[in-house]
Amino acid sequence: MMNESESSVSLEDCLPDWPAGPLDEYRKRASFDWRKMRLLIEGESVIKYKAKIWKTLENDPLFARNAWEELSRHEEQRMVFARLKKLLETNFCEEGEYMVNPFLIPASIQAIGAYNWSLAVKRVLSNEYFATAALNVPSERNQNILNDIKAFKAFGCICITEMAHGSNTKDLQTTATFDPKTQEFILNTPNLEATKVWSGVLGHTATHAYVFAQLYTPDNQCHGLHTFLVNIRDPKTLQPYQGVIIGDMGPKIGLNGLDNGFMNFKNYRIAKECLIQRSGEVTEDGKYIPKVKSSEKSEATLGMLSTGRVFITNMSITNLQMAVTIAVRYSAIRRQFGPTNGEELQILEYQTQQWRLMPYVAAAYVLNYSFTSIFQDYIDFVVLSSMMGSARKRAEMGAEIHALSSCAKAMCGWIARDAIQESREACGGHGYLKASRLGEIRNDHDANNTYEGDNNVLLQQTSNYLMKFYKEKVENKKVKSPFGSVNYIENLDQILASQLDEHIDNMKTAINSYHFIVCWLLKQSDLKMSSLLRKHNDDLFKARNECQAYFLRTLAIAYFECNAIERFHEFCKQASSNELRTVLERMGTLFALWSLEKHLPTLYESNYIGAHSPRNVASTMREAILTLCLQLKNEAVSLVDAIAPPDFILNSCLGNSDGRVYEHIFDALSHNKGAFERPSWYTEFTENKPNIQTHAIELKAKL
Amino acid sequence: MMNESESSVSLEDCLPDWPAGPLDEYRKRASFDWRKMRLLIEGESVIKYKAKIWKTLENDPLFARNAWEELSRHEEQRMVFARLKKLLETNFCEEGEYMVNPFLIPASIQAIGAYNWSLAVKRVLSNEYFATAALNVPSERNQNILNDIKAFKAFGCICITEMAHGSNTKDLQTTATFDPKTQEFILNTPNLEATKVWSGVLGHTATHAYVFAQLYTPDNQCHGLHTFLVNIRDPKTLQPYQGVIIGDMGPKIGLNGLDNGFMNFKNYRIAKECLIQRSGEVTEDGKYIPKVKSSEKSEATLGMLSTGRVFITNMSITNLQMAVTIAVRYSAIRRQFGPTNGEELQILEYQTQQWRLMPYVAAAYVLNYSFTSIFQDYIDFVVLSSMMGSARKRAEMGAEIHALSSCAKAMCGWIARDAIQESREACGGHGYLKASRLGEIRNDHDANNTYEGDNNVLLQQTSNYLMKFYKEKVENKKVKSPFGSVNYIENLDQILASQLDEHIDNMKTAINSYHFIVCWLLKQSDLKMSSLLRKHNDDLFKARNECQAYFLRTLAIAYFECNAIERFHEFCKQASSNELRTVLERMGTLFALWSLEKHLPTLYESNYIGAHSPRNVASTMREAILTLCLQLKNEAVSLVDAIAPPDFILNSCLGNSDGRVYEHIFDALSHNKGAFERPSWYTEFTENKPNIQTHAIELKAKL
Repeated sequence: MMNESESSVSLEDCLPDWPAGPLDEYRKRASFDWRKMRLLIEGESVIKYKAKIWKTLENDPLFARNAWEELSRHEEQRMVFARLKKLLETNFCEEGEYMVNPFLIPASIQAIGAYNWSLAVKRVLSNEYFATAALNVPSERNQNILNDIKAFKAFGCICITEMAHGSNTKDLQTTATFDPKTQEFILNTPNLEATKVWSGVLGHTATHAYVFAQLYTPDNQCHGLHTFLVNIRDPKTLQPYQGVIIGDMGPKIGLNGLDNGFMNFKNYRIAKECLIQRSGEVTEDGKYIPKVKSSEKSEATLGMLSTGRVFITNMSITNLQMAVTIAVRYSAIRRQFGPTNGEELQILEYQTQQWRLMPYVAAAYVLNYSFTSIFQDYIDFVVLSSMMGSARKRAEMGAEIHALSSCAKAMCGWIARDAIQESREACGGHGYLKASRLGEIRNDHDANNTYEGDNNVLLQQTSNYLMKFYKEKVENKKVKSPFGSVNYIENLDQILASQLDEHIDNMKTAINSYHFIVCWLLKQSDLKMSSLLRKHNDDLFKARNECQAYFLRTLAIAYFECNAIERFHEFCKQASSNELRTVLERMGTLFALWSLEKHLPTLYESNYIGAHSPRNVASTMREAILTLCLQLKNEAVSLVDAIAPPDFILNSCLGNSDGRVYEHIFDALSHNKGAFERPSWYTEFTENKPNIQTHAIELKAKL
Repeated sequence: MMNESESSVSLEDCLPDWPAGPLDEYRKRASFDWRKMRLLIEGESVIKYKAKIWKTLENDPLFARNAWEELSRHEEQRMVFARLKKLLETNFCEEGEYMVNPFLIPASIQAIGAYNWSLAVKRVLSNEYFATAALNVPSERNQNILNDIKAFKAFGCICITEMAHGSNTKDLQTTATFDPKTQEFILNTPNLEATKVWSGVLGHTATHAYVFAQLYTPDNQCHGLHTFLVNIRDPKTLQPYQGVIIGDMGPKIGLNGLDNGFMNFKNYRIAKECLIQRSGEVTEDGKYIPKVKSSEKSEATLGMLSTGRVFITNMSITNLQMAVTIAVRYSAIRRQFGPTNGEELQILEYQTQQWRLMPYVAAAYVLNYSFTSIFQDYIDFVVLSSMMGSARKRAEMGAEIHALSSCAKAMCGWIARDAIQESREACGGHGYLKASRLGEIRNDHDANNTYEGDNNVLLQQTSNYLMKFYKEKVENKKVKSPFGSVNYIENLDQILASQLDEHIDNMKTAINSYHFIVCWLLKQSDLKMSSLLRKHNDDLFKARNECQAYFLRTLAIAYFECNAIERFHEFCKQASSNELRTVLERMGTLFALWSLEKHLPTLYESNYIGAHSPRNVASTMREAILTLCLQLKNEAVSLVDAIAPPDFILNSCLGNSDGRVYEHIFDALSHNKGAFERPSWYTEFTENKPNIQTHAIELKAKL
């Protein structure tokens, strides 16, 4: 999958044997070697790179922690900052290695994020993300700031969102007015709603901000949204400059180690060169000169937007992998009920538990490969862009990556969300302990479904892209995209005329069914759009809004699921052995059927399941899902072993690789702060008795 | 719905006008009077009772709080304890009122829970719940302990669950061995896994525990699970007695104001009379004498189990109501995008937002009535039991209440969970603020899906009940239950022979479709069970386990949904005006279609949607769902007004009734602790620079 560099560290060093213990029973039942599976999924250099990061963290006292610790938000922020400094000092990777193997970049986010998301996000935002933004338009000043950031003399953040505007960036209200007298821009926050909010790293630490504002020339003309690289805090004191009011957003649902901030400008003057001259510049006398054409502009923006989405997809999958690891290992140990007079059964032996968890284990594999493979496409796009190839080709690749990354971000975010919740519930009461880590994973993950755009809005990006091809097909143009994700639309008529003539019980028939669903939804959405446009006098905004639920939204979802299964179907062929291939194919099929199940009404209604099909396709599909869950049950522990981080990183009393669940739970219970201490306020019970006048216990109890 | 007592407080005093503000626009659009709606839903005495509780809390400085506050777990526990004492001092209700109107009991849980769940749960567990358990078998000692509890000299908790055993109580391992020499029982925790865990109030405050243990006579005979009312802490010092080791469970995902505890016994001797002689007693020379027959025993247990489930259902619905209130009010204010050159639209105007939220608003109404009506059945059962009526009638009522409360607890817990999550995401980034309260609601609510039994296990109780009637029907017995929830099974053959001959677009056709689904799943489950029993040589345990997913589990879900819609369909007829009835019917229909949508594959596959039905039933149903969402969109704000607690109780910066969202957000941001302060560790940036050797920013950025 990727180039491997030779190294003296062996794979066994990176992936030592799991400790012996009660999980051995299931490990022995697995049909495949978990190390070979991980090698197939991640490749040697990623495995070694992640192992290096993880060993460094585990060996460094600064990164020591336990699953039951309770830090205040301020303590969390302090620890994240100290650990971030340590990460910057640590040389995980020789310069140039990222170029040779770009997969090391998501690997580093995954490795550090699995340890702590606030730390990983703060690292990316303040460093790579900020640098990428600033470097897009090189200048001496930008280079100096970047050098300062590298030398830890500066700390960057990106300020787009305002209190009243998120997705609709066009209507942001912060103003930057050029003053020719002083050759400065004057930044202002015109009202409360225009307060910059949610910017990561802004809350307490950023010295520089990449600010989105409406550019005004002295003639009071607005020239639209521009970006400014602004000094906001004195790097020598970390105090905000006069004219900038900055605060920390305060407690959040998760990611509390990250200092998200808000900011107001009051006639804050910044030098003319703070303007990042991407889309235009201002002359000394205050004339606006637009720079590039809007088509190229939007293409550049699309590329930049995809970066965030691709990485959030990666983050979601990391959470998905951790959640199922915890739940599967716990389910392989926890026993409850059993045959009369027999030993209690591990809960993983129950059909319900298999059916709740195995589809998410399958999803952890299918979606991870989806990410890997889309990331490869993304790299191809970035490399091509840097080589300044054909502008049209670049635009086509950019658009497809944008469509793919938008729906991948949304769907992986949602599937991970559901997997985390199912894992939490599948672990019963003990899953409710903070020390299970499932609550932290859920709360941190929650942000992935919102930032970089609400998932439902993102799906519109994908459906817009798809409808364009439908139009082209109808106009008899050839449908073909650089990465081929829409190529089957070329056979639209043939696909729409097809019917299911067998049961859906493998990836290939599932893919065929998905091709039908996508084509059918394209056609239905087009018909619906036409009727809505007639209804609303060609108002595209209204028509599109009323064509979302069950039409364009479902279209984008089906397209993603189809694409994920197609990619995984190809991936199975790369398996180095029959054992690996068999288990991968089962997981691909399970994911495919489990996803397709939600589209059954469409398959029936459209007559795809029609006169020539067995009527009981639904039952047969469901039977197949249960059979696959059962077949994969004995592979489950090794399947999560192949995607699990080390115990120190996973940090869950339920998910330890040694399977000694109850010892770890008891450890968590008996070490939590003040566990055995009498509360400091005990005299509130023993002495200060309340003045109880009347009481209804007896009456209530009689009920 | 319930008896109303006259009172001098007017309804307008309890339900003052909402403050004028930007929500007025939607309020004016509503077709009905929100006060009349609330009166219909809750009745005057519940409204007045809740208002009294809420006003008391709001006026008492001890209950002051804000949406952005951050308390440590120990501070939370201290506050909950202080507030609990205050609640005990406050006389919300004259003695006897609970008897006259039992609906005041869930109303008090709802009112206090909406303020804070840890407080409400601690109040119920330590008081009512404990008292109910102990009072079941009156004795002088029990009465003394109850008097102590009333006088705040004692504090009770219930210890069932052990570290390795939850649902399977039969296999609990704590032992109570009778010693005739001293006439004492000796309590022991035989191993780590038998540690009592999760008991609420045990962690730091309980003086008495209601302990489940295996009773052993001196001849080393085990006589099964018995309960013991045990002194565990000295009420004068709050220190555990010698032989009892108690700890607090530590940090949890939610409910951190509640001190859940764990406990080990080491040869802890308790007096003979600590045994609650429900199922048996021990003679002075150590002989065991069983007390009641097992059928009555299990009936008593069923009743007791239902109590918890009924109240958890109530708690889930409270969370559901709060979540949709926050999301609907925010969506009616928040604007994003809009027609070209037009004003930005409130996000509630978008089809997607309506479709995400309105089904949950409908669920908040339908499920609330479901609870109200099942609670009425439960009261009828309890009253009949206390009157010692026919044992058979009692058993039948108990069994039906048990079946209903089990699936209601599971389904309301899950629907509330999904509603909270959808509300969180529908509020975008600001929903991620702690001050939105959605995170707290989610984290506290999470426990409802686990305690009193995992939801999937609870659904088995319901399906067992239903299959019994199928068998009776097949044996030509008359199918009839006390509360009538299964009566339609009497027409099984006729229902199974029926086909849909129109579109499903109202409650009546939805109910008919549900009758078909339940009957069809009964038959399919029976066929499946038969084939599984053949496969497994009549091993019922194995067969039942393999008949859950898509069969018995779905059966229980469909039965609940059907019952909820049937009850709500009747409720609509009680509406005092056409306006109320119309909006209620729309909500009932929306909930019905939205629930039924998930069963469409079954309706197609079974040929219920067959030759005589319009093939596009799915599309028509979905079109109807969207139309209902659109029709209800203008009612949405008044619909949540009719179920919302006051702002002080809701405590969400997004859900205030004045609609001044951005002011409240800014308030939360600018008042959070240390918002504008430089972090104490700022010199970690300004002075202690890390030793950075090499850096890959440029390379990464170039990607």
